[in-house]
Amino acid sequence: MPRVRRIDHVAIVIDDIDQALAFWRDGLGLEVSHIEDVPGQQSVVAFLPTDQGEIELVKPTDEESGVARFLDKRGPGVHHVCFQVEDLDASLETLQVKGIRLINAEPVIGAAGKRIAFIHPESTHGVLIELYEETEQEPQMSVDRARRLAERALAQSQVIAAGVLGFLHGLRSDGVGDPSPSERKN
Amino acid sequence: MPRVRRIDHVAIVIDDIDQALAFWRDGLGLEVSHIEDVPGQQSVVAFLPTDQGEIELVKPTDEESGVARFLDKRGPGVHHVCFQVEDLDASLETLQVKGIRLINAEPVIGAAGKRIAFIHPESTHGVLIELYEETEQEPQMSVDRARRLAERALAQSQVIAAGVLGFLHGLRSDGVGDPSPSERKN
Repeated sequence: MPRVRRIDHVAIVIDDIDQALAFWRDGLGLEVSHIEDVPGQQSVVAFLPTDQGEIELVKPTDEESGVARFLDKRGPGVHHVCFQVEDLDASLETLQVKGIRLINAEPVIGAAGKRIAFIHPESTHGVLIELYEETEQEPQMSVDRARRLAERALAQSQVIAAGVLGFLHGLRSDGVGDPSPSERKN
Repeated sequence: MPRVRRIDHVAIVIDDIDQALAFWRDGLGLEVSHIEDVPGQQSVVAFLPTDQGEIELVKPTDEESGVARFLDKRGPGVHHVCFQVEDLDASLETLQVKGIRLINAEPVIGAAGKRIAFIHPESTHGVLIELYEETEQEPQMSVDRARRLAERALAQSQVIAAGVLGFLHGLRSDGVGDPSPSERKN
């Protein structure tokens, strides 16, 4: 039987990042590690880690997206629960044998190089579930993503601080850098 | 600022324990630590721990309870998310100062001696949130609860195995015992 390691994150769909942070960060006291535009999910996502498990606040950026339709239909609330599993292929195979309906019958590569698959809520008693397996490529893809984010921020920015330029040159020359200055903080 | 330590559990309201376990245990591969009647929550709860964070499958046993009304209104799905906090009193005070609506303005003692309080979903963007602080009394209360469960099982049972009697006598004489034989396994 495939093994589930842990609850990786709980994603909550919201309609306003600032109002949500007024509760989750300023009231409950969770820290925001970063806020990021995730075009693949047509969302802006605020990441709030704890010592065990992360809260992700997801605001749709496209009215036609699945997350936006969820928000329209059900209002703000829990969107999905993500579990880290040891062997994603084995998990999906077991679920298929059991007749569980999968959204992704094969793993897909999500944000930050994560290898993931979603299970349909029809088969899980109403809970959209994401399974996630850590890959060896993930750390390198996080660096690549940081570079892309930095370059996009650079292209969009009207006022470019010298420090950001220096950071980018550092990234280009050695291929490794602290991703945090490149992430959107809004 | 009060500190949130971790996601303690995600509670999922279901209408059928066996059907839910066919997915969560037999499909996804989570292990069931125990299934227990929780009269204070008018529910039967199946507890499925992972290395970090637990899934609780909650089936209402009383049609008038809050959990039953939730099930009627929204169908099966995530009922609440529970965070372990370092200082529950400080957390509640901060939330009140911020104008967050609390279901329990003062901590209450929940199942197994846990010191808990709920935050109203009106103030959390649609998520019912439980806060939980571990108490020094909790381990002893778990033993007391195990004894009560064992005695109730004894009173209700028509056929009592000698092994159960031995277990109960052991509990009564030294006040400590393995709680697992007393929990309902259905």
